[in-house]
Amino acid sequence: MKIDNYIELYKNKTFESMNLHFKSKEIFPGGINHNIRYFKPYPFYTVKAKGKFLTDIDGNKYIDFWNGHWALILGHSPKMVSDKLKKQVKRGTLYGTANESSIKLGEMINKAMPLAENIRFSSTGSEATMYAIRLARAKTRKRFIAKVIGGWHGFNSNLLQSVNYPYEVDEGIGLIEDENQFIESIQFNDLDRSLKVLESIKDDLAGIIVEPILGGAGCIIPKEGYLEGLQEFARQNDSLLILDEIVTGFRHSFSGAMNHYKLEPDIFTLGKIIGGGLPIGAVCGKKEVMSLADMTNKSDKRMYCSIGGGTFSANPITMTAGYTTLKFLKKNPTVYEKINSLGDLARNELSKLFKELKIDVKITGYGSLFMIHFLNDKVREINNALDSALTNNELLFNYQFALIAKYNIFFLPLKMGAFSHAHEKEDVYKLLEATREIFQNNKARIAHT
Amino acid sequence: MKIDNYIELYKNKTFESMNLHFKSKEIFPGGINHNIRYFKPYPFYTVKAKGKFLTDIDGNKYIDFWNGHWALILGHSPKMVSDKLKKQVKRGTLYGTANESSIKLGEMINKAMPLAENIRFSSTGSEATMYAIRLARAKTRKRFIAKVIGGWHGFNSNLLQSVNYPYEVDEGIGLIEDENQFIESIQFNDLDRSLKVLESIKDDLAGIIVEPILGGAGCIIPKEGYLEGLQEFARQNDSLLILDEIVTGFRHSFSGAMNHYKLEPDIFTLGKIIGGGLPIGAVCGKKEVMSLADMTNKSDKRMYCSIGGGTFSANPITMTAGYTTLKFLKKNPTVYEKINSLGDLARNELSKLFKELKIDVKITGYGSLFMIHFLNDKVREINNALDSALTNNELLFNYQFALIAKYNIFFLPLKMGAFSHAHEKEDVYKLLEATREIFQNNKARIAHT
Repeated sequence: MKIDNYIELYKNKTFESMNLHFKSKEIFPGGINHNIRYFKPYPFYTVKAKGKFLTDIDGNKYIDFWNGHWALILGHSPKMVSDKLKKQVKRGTLYGTANESSIKLGEMINKAMPLAENIRFSSTGSEATMYAIRLARAKTRKRFIAKVIGGWHGFNSNLLQSVNYPYEVDEGIGLIEDENQFIESIQFNDLDRSLKVLESIKDDLAGIIVEPILGGAGCIIPKEGYLEGLQEFARQNDSLLILDEIVTGFRHSFSGAMNHYKLEPDIFTLGKIIGGGLPIGAVCGKKEVMSLADMTNKSDKRMYCSIGGGTFSANPITMTAGYTTLKFLKKNPTVYEKINSLGDLARNELSKLFKELKIDVKITGYGSLFMIHFLNDKVREINNALDSALTNNELLFNYQFALIAKYNIFFLPLKMGAFSHAHEKEDVYKLLEATREIFQNNKARIAHT
Repeated sequence: MKIDNYIELYKNKTFESMNLHFKSKEIFPGGINHNIRYFKPYPFYTVKAKGKFLTDIDGNKYIDFWNGHWALILGHSPKMVSDKLKKQVKRGTLYGTANESSIKLGEMINKAMPLAENIRFSSTGSEATMYAIRLARAKTRKRFIAKVIGGWHGFNSNLLQSVNYPYEVDEGIGLIEDENQFIESIQFNDLDRSLKVLESIKDDLAGIIVEPILGGAGCIIPKEGYLEGLQEFARQNDSLLILDEIVTGFRHSFSGAMNHYKLEPDIFTLGKIIGGGLPIGAVCGKKEVMSLADMTNKSDKRMYCSIGGGTFSANPITMTAGYTTLKFLKKNPTVYEKINSLGDLARNELSKLFKELKIDVKITGYGSLFMIHFLNDKVREINNALDSALTNNELLFNYQFALIAKYNIFFLPLKMGAFSHAHEKEDVYKLLEATREIFQNNKARIAHT
């Protein structure tokens, strides 16, 4: 089937979504409240989400591999979380004061990730990474921050640079050069080149911020030695390693990727999973760094690093959802076995299938995260964001759109998928079956429209 | 009673809070997740909030004039909101996709505030003001932002300057000079001096950001002509007026302060009340500005202004709480009559009382917002943040602490109070009675300890 036919199929089943999108465009720029949530010809409009399913306003029920930006490790509105939330909404959603629920979640994280010696909760990941940068600069009294090309750390002005291809072009208008003159970009998985860049700024290098697995840029696993090399460089040069674990924290085990890769960051950020589906961010780290944020009993502003917080930080709804989620994960380590093996199954079976179909792909990922890259003459390996950007993303979009249009399988187009505790093997098989059908007779056509 | 005795009283009734604070300090820098939530000797720890009451872990029940950072205009967990939330938590907390609930809240805001021609939801106010700045720079292709001395627009790096006394000192370590070289500060309510500063940067002035009522800096009302003068200057110089209505939006009427002061900002920000007690921020404005954030169908990054969004933007829990709150306010305009007249009553009666007690105060505020300033030889009027900073804040703290310790009346120390729909006249009388008792025989003693 040609991509045009899939668009026809999609339009036929999403009539009410189309109407809502017209309305939505009148109110919101582009009709959306987060750029990546848009896809052509228009996104469907969700009215309900339960377990592994998203239901749109036309009643279509999608198997969801997006899982709320990969935050919902237990699937949508798991009963134990919604039961607790039903009680908490009656006891308050925003105390605006110190509260007990934040201590419970904080202690839970601290026990699971001992390097979270101290924690500061914010309401989003964008805030957490911004505060991480500020703390690193405060601790080292240096200015430069190195970030990975294609690395995604949210929409804050401090780190909105070299995110999208072409990486040398500013991330849109309205950002001023002077703000980002102390950000330097390094190539993921290329330690030699990265070290050369770092070497050139080492005297003024406050920190290196890196996702252990490149998430938004294409589900890219670090090569052995890369992250360790960055850590080593940071240590030798009195700079800090800032690990952005917003996606990976509690994703692969009841800990972070730092555990798997044996890293000891000075600062790290969390978000997504630890909020149990409610807004959260967290900057964590060693006491000697985090204590800079303690402004109690200090009268002089030059004695501390001012970070949020914010009106909604440590609110009891988020704290309750996060704590309930982590408590379940702690008590049920089989969740990780299950979702990681679903990831293995998907990667293995998809690889086999595409081989059989003679379609040149590379399936990346680790544990419950996975992504299909359609290779071409330019790209044979997926080692960094540029590789991923130069694969056949038109084909990837058409494939993922076909999954949505005909098979009610949802990946946010061009983004990796994640398994949650709500998924089962049958979901992998459905994905395989749909993939086979899409490509079996239509490879050429779907690829070239 | 001396302040020492109030501390004794407080310690006696907050034993469990003290224990929790020890625990909390082990995990969170300063024991808190938002700097202003700390007060000496330690804050109480909330376990429940309902209507006008906060209940701490020791069972103390405080009349709350802080209302979740002034966000909870209907009081804590009003039934109509918690009923809707109980249903929504079962239908999903984070769709991660376009959704219908965001359109409902967006349309509601747009109808109430027609200048919100377009809206982008974020998850916090700090994000909203950061995006407002970015949009202003994108629209004008200029760099400077003018902000008011003492103006509070959140923890984002773009606007964390001249917030706290002494204003010329950086807001803590870790902020680099180069980030803020394009921020210029102006004195609230001093139009001549402000215009002189603006004049000096007019060719490169992207926008002026201002709270219509200085909130965090001391509940300070604009003098007639001040905000209009800033707007006029912005218009004449192709700069934008950015009104930060995060505190004032839907606070005094079913609209913004812009309605009361007859302003027409190009961009304005909302937060707090519109989230109904859940995390939110919003940047709103004219289509010609907001459309810059529309990146759909644009392949070149230089064609749009990249703003969030974020994982949690437009999540259905926040959207539901916000919509339910605004719908109730729309249907019940008497809420505003009630809370505004409670504010009038408090201001009038407190003024009378302090006059009678021969204590020199200035009560500022408007509608449901109010604040007591203890004057001294240095300060006779409260026109700007500096005035407020130079009043007798030690006395203010001791007074507000006495209210907490002995009378179970809670203001976040040194911050203004707000009335919610859950408050009644009796709460004003309780405040008056407590105030009389605190000062009647102890004026000298509480003032000088």
